[in-house]
Amino acid sequence: MEIIGEKINGTRRQIAGAIIDRDGEKISDLAKKQAEAGAAYLDINAGTNPEREAEDMVWLVKTVQAVTEVPLCLDSPNPAAIEAALKTVNKTPMINSISGEKSRLSNILPLAAGHKCPLIALALDDGGIPKSSAERINIIKLMILETRKSNIPDNLIYIDPLAMALSTNSSGGIIALETIHSIRALYPEINFTMGLSNISYGLPSRNIINRTFLTLAMYEGLNSAILDPLDADLMMTILTTELAAGKDRFAQKYLKYHRNRIQKEKSSRTE
Amino acid sequence: MEIIGEKINGTRRQIAGAIIDRDGEKISDLAKKQAEAGAAYLDINAGTNPEREAEDMVWLVKTVQAVTEVPLCLDSPNPAAIEAALKTVNKTPMINSISGEKSRLSNILPLAAGHKCPLIALALDDGGIPKSSAERINIIKLMILETRKSNIPDNLIYIDPLAMALSTNSSGGIIALETIHSIRALYPEINFTMGLSNISYGLPSRNIINRTFLTLAMYEGLNSAILDPLDADLMMTILTTELAAGKDRFAQKYLKYHRNRIQKEKSSRTE
Repeated sequence: MEIIGEKINGTRRQIAGAIIDRDGEKISDLAKKQAEAGAAYLDINAGTNPEREAEDMVWLVKTVQAVTEVPLCLDSPNPAAIEAALKTVNKTPMINSISGEKSRLSNILPLAAGHKCPLIALALDDGGIPKSSAERINIIKLMILETRKSNIPDNLIYIDPLAMALSTNSSGGIIALETIHSIRALYPEINFTMGLSNISYGLPSRNIINRTFLTLAMYEGLNSAILDPLDADLMMTILTTELAAGKDRFAQKYLKYHRNRIQKEKSSRTE
Repeated sequence: MEIIGEKINGTRRQIAGAIIDRDGEKISDLAKKQAEAGAAYLDINAGTNPEREAEDMVWLVKTVQAVTEVPLCLDSPNPAAIEAALKTVNKTPMINSISGEKSRLSNILPLAAGHKCPLIALALDDGGIPKSSAERINIIKLMILETRKSNIPDNLIYIDPLAMALSTNSSGGIIALETIHSIRALYPEINFTMGLSNISYGLPSRNIINRTFLTLAMYEGLNSAILDPLDADLMMTILTTELAAGKDRFAQKYLKYHRNRIQKEKSSRTE
C-alpha cells in the first residue's frame, strides 16, 4: 500500500495561511511527520489562486525537499504550476492529476510523459463525474489509450475511481468498487488511488465510514491512497486489511507496527 | 445481516457457573440485552458435559423463552441435547450444527429436517478442517447433497466456512473468503454465518482484526454472524459495511443507530 500524505494542502485554511506567511516551519513539520509515518509520496497543493500558485508551489517544493527525501505528488490542474514545480524537484514526482477533460489531457499529460512521472488519472471528463461505473470505465479506457500513446507505461498510472458521498447516493461507494474491479481485470498493471474523505461527507462518525470503505477498496485492488498517515486508526485499518486478506506473512508488519505503537505510547507517558 | 447472539455459551466459565447454579437472572439478563440489541437468534450452548447437557439445555431454553420471543439457536454436537431442546422450544429454532462428519449427518441432520429448522453447516469432515478452499468447497457440496436429500431447502442452510487464526496461517482469512465467494456463485439461495473470534487468536488488538475481517466477509456474502450484539463497535462495523456496500438506502439504518446511540449515551450521563 503506497500512502500519499495529504496534509500539505493549500485548499485547507491553516495551510493556506502558512503558505501566504511563508511559515516554513509549519510545512517542514508536516513533511517530516508524514514521512516518518510511512508516506511514499507527499502531496503538495498550493491552493487555487492562479496568480500565486506557481510561485507558491515552488516554495512548497523547496521547503519540503529541504527536510525529507520522500518524493512529492504535485497536486494541481494548472500546467504552469506543475511545470514550475517540475523544474525544482530533486526526485521524479507523481503528478496529481489528469482526467478525461480535454484541457488536462492536452496540458498535463505531456508534462507527465516528458518526465516519466507516475500519474493520477481521475474517472471524469468534460461532462463531469458519470453516475454509473460503466461510464467511468469508458472514460478510463479512453485515458489509457492516451497515456499509452504518450508512451507512459500502465504501471505508472494511478486510477482514481472517485468515491462519492454516501449521504446523497447509496451507490457512491459501490460504483467506485465496481470500477476498480473491472479496470483491474482489464489492465492488470494499472494502480489505483483514492481520496477518502468524500465518501462520508454529510454523515456522522465519518472516520469509521472512511476506514470501512478503505478496507473494501483495498480488497478490490486499491494499492495506494491519499490520506493522513498520522491517523493511527487509519494506518491500523490498512495493516489489518492486509493481514485479513492474507497479504502479511506471519503477521510481521502488523506485529511490528503494534510494537512500535506501544513503545511510543510508553515513552510519551514517561516523558 | 442476521445476528446470532453468542453470549449464552456454557463453554465460558462464567456462563457454566450460572448454568450449574441455576442462576436464571444472569441468563435472562443476557437474553434480554441481546434481544434488545437486535439479535435475530440467541445461541444456547449448555457446555460439554454429556451427563448434564440435555437437562441443562432444557433449563436454558425455558429460562430464555420466559423473557424473550427471539428464536433460539441450539448449539450442540449432541443429538440427545438437541432433541430434548426441540421438545421444549416455542418457536422453530436454528440448529448449530452439522458438518461433513458422518455421525453429525446421521444424528443431527434428521432432527433439523424433521422440524424444518434453519441449520448451520461447518466446512469440515471426519478428516478435520481442510487447508484449502477447494477441499472445503467439496465438503460443502457433499453436505448440500445430503440436506437436499432430506428436503431441507437451500435457504435454510447457513454455511460456516471456518475462518482460522491468522497468527498461524496467513491464508486463514482468505480461504474462508474464497469459500464464501465460490459457494455463493454455485448456490445463490444458501446463507453464510461465522464465528469471529478465531481469526484474531494469538494476535494483539483482536477486536480491530475481527471487525476488518467481518467487513470483508460481508462484502463476499456473509449474511449472518455469531457475535456479541452488545459490542457497539462491531455493530457499527456491520452498519458501515452495509452503508459502504450500497445496502443502506439514504443511510437510514446507519443514521437511526447513530441517533439511538447518542440518545443512550445522553441518558446514561444524566442518570
